[in-house]
Amino acid sequence: ASNRNLLVLPGDGIGPEVMNEVRKIIAWMGKKRAVGFDITEDLVGGAALDKHGVPLSDDAMKTALEADAVLFGSVGGPKWDTADFSKKPERGLLRLRKEMDLFANLRPAKVFDALVDASSLKPEIVKGLDIMIIRELTSGVYFGEPRGRHVNAAGEVEAFDTQRYTAPEIRRVCAVAFELARKRKNKVLSSEKANVMHTGVLWREEATKLHKEKYSDVKLDHMYADALAMQLLRAPKEFDVIVTDNLFGDILSDEASMLTGSLGLLPSASLGAPDATGRRKALYEPIHGSAPDIAGKGLANPIAQTLSYAMMLRYSFDLGKEADLVETAVENVLKAGYRTGDLLVGKTDGVKKVGTQEMGDAIVKEL
Amino acid sequence: ASNRNLLVLPGDGIGPEVMNEVRKIIAWMGKKRAVGFDITEDLVGGAALDKHGVPLSDDAMKTALEADAVLFGSVGGPKWDTADFSKKPERGLLRLRKEMDLFANLRPAKVFDALVDASSLKPEIVKGLDIMIIRELTSGVYFGEPRGRHVNAAGEVEAFDTQRYTAPEIRRVCAVAFELARKRKNKVLSSEKANVMHTGVLWREEATKLHKEKYSDVKLDHMYADALAMQLLRAPKEFDVIVTDNLFGDILSDEASMLTGSLGLLPSASLGAPDATGRRKALYEPIHGSAPDIAGKGLANPIAQTLSYAMMLRYSFDLGKEADLVETAVENVLKAGYRTGDLLVGKTDGVKKVGTQEMGDAIVKEL
Ligand SMILES: CC(C)[C@H](C(=O)O)[C@@H](O)C(=O)O
Ligand SMILES: CC(C)[C@H](C(=O)O)[C@@H](O)C(=O)O
Repeated sequence: ASNRNLLVLPGDGIGPEVMNEVRKIIAWMGKKRAVGFDITEDLVGGAALDKHGVPLSDDAMKTALEADAVLFGSVGGPKWDTADFSKKPERGLLRLRKEMDLFANLRPAKVFDALVDASSLKPEIVKGLDIMIIRELTSGVYFGEPRGRHVNAAGEVEAFDTQRYTAPEIRRVCAVAFELARKRKNKVLSSEKANVMHTGVLWREEATKLHKEKYSDVKLDHMYADALAMQLLRAPKEFDVIVTDNLFGDILSDEASMLTGSLGLLPSASLGAPDATGRRKALYEPIHGSAPDIAGKGLANPIAQTLSYAMMLRYSFDLGKEADLVETAVENVLKAGYRTGDLLVGKTDGVKKVGTQEMGDAIVKEL
Repeated sequence: ASNRNLLVLPGDGIGPEVMNEVRKIIAWMGKKRAVGFDITEDLVGGAALDKHGVPLSDDAMKTALEADAVLFGSVGGPKWDTADFSKKPERGLLRLRKEMDLFANLRPAKVFDALVDASSLKPEIVKGLDIMIIRELTSGVYFGEPRGRHVNAAGEVEAFDTQRYTAPEIRRVCAVAFELARKRKNKVLSSEKANVMHTGVLWREEATKLHKEKYSDVKLDHMYADALAMQLLRAPKEFDVIVTDNLFGDILSDEASMLTGSLGLLPSASLGAPDATGRRKALYEPIHGSAPDIAGKGLANPIAQTLSYAMMLRYSFDLGKEADLVETAVENVLKAGYRTGDLLVGKTDGVKKVGTQEMGDAIVKEL
């Protein structure tokens, strides 16, 4: 046995297609670098709904909890849009995040030199951009109770959600940000709406306290989430590590990802706390969704899924060298001019338009 | 008496400076167009805290409720950063919004041809951009109860906020969006996180119902707030009117405003429901904040405040012609190359760097 138990959850839409390309790389790694995995595959999202009536079966949940890592595709699609709240495909993903306690979501936004022109932003604003957004992933308004709907005293239908954060929840995700910053440019920007929300006030306090206690060597700044949404467009290169809550992180990391020109490029890692042996539960997924409009057409960009696999090599299996190999192969393929449709913006002279499989093959060949 | 009761609240930071420039235009309007106002002035934010110990006095609140319109500057600054939550300068503004019941916040994001180059985005993405974001302003997580902090059952400090929306609250702001869309490009994009939040589910349902009942001639689409944060960068010109809740509106409208190149340009209107005589309570304020870093230096751009005044002429006093005059004057001054510091990005040949007063004078001269 390889001692590397991997659960693969391709999900819906383009998930299975892009995952197929990663399988080619997994095979290459097994053959050429003797990096093997014990792979289990299961359903999630709409695919699981269709088969089991729930967006994630208890069996799959159990496998995920026992796996060394989960490689996740994407979920959702028009077929399941009218599903009840508790049965939306997204609930499968949210259940994984919550029950695996994956509180730290690492979302890099990095601009490849070869793709500077694919961004909607001017090259001078984004060239060389390399920021890391750390989003809290298991609390906040995504999970806070009470939540639901009722008829209020005035006889009106009313819906409500609760944003809730405890001091330890804030501290543990900020600690991940400070630790990472030490390996990068040594600065952290913490973002909330402390001028409006009580959770924001506590967030700022705890980030400040933790910084004083343990990380005063790292530079810490604070910015309201609305101001950050602007600064990310004005001067994104001023940032290095950004830490924020679940909901702000959802929006701001999607905004940041567009600075790079395509969602089709960006991976993410969701990590739990290390156990006694240093092992962390972990799930890796592309930033992009299931893109039902192009699903099944061989048009999807497999790079984000590929780089998610590379992040897994690095963060879950300490295979930094192999991760580098994959990342360099992707960079070279982009340099060589290979482009899926999502990347065909801006200058397109000297580029080669390819589909999902050709892009996957090009990466394997480059390896 | 003019029958136009105006309350002017310059506030903190650059607020008083930019308001001074608007006073020149008000004077011009009185002299040249016989458009006069009965003006009362009062304190808000840090200025009110210093004098009255509260960020808005009951007296000022009363005057605001009786006024035909409020012209607001900006609030906040480092001096008051450590103020208690209930005494933050921002609470003055939030009290005005809530007690005047200004539920519809209109935030235009328009790109002036003369300033296409000031945007961080490529000219082809933003040239001709003209979108209107309608943000719900009196409900949601800004005001929902319960909110606060306690020690939870596990003995941890925990903070919480409540996002709450009733069906009528959603309907009335969506109605404003549909009405406005009819005078524009006849399409509305409604945004929430219905895949995660119960308030989002109700929001989508009510927008859809109202559309069916009364506005089926307008095109209605829905988009999750994170996807919208991306699309605003990818293809902003696809949008016309966007309607969303208080918190998403705060972030997304700030993001959208950066597409235009500078916050120093953008006005906003916050409107209540029309009473029996058709009169709406209203407050007009620039999108930008108090910018403490440049306050008192004569560097601030008075255009956003000036255009807020123009919006007031149009929406509160039915003086569309006079509003046009002001807007055209601003456009011409920009065409002529006048630029405050915030606009000095991108190409700067043929431009004339000016301060707050020179910009104000140039606008009056152009009038
Ligand atoms: C699919 C959805 C529930 C999810 C979220 O909102 O967290 C997605 O947008 C993401 O960012 O991973
Ligand atoms: C000053 C602050 C309370 C306010 C808000 O969050 O609404 C501001 O950001 C705005 O958008 O008007």
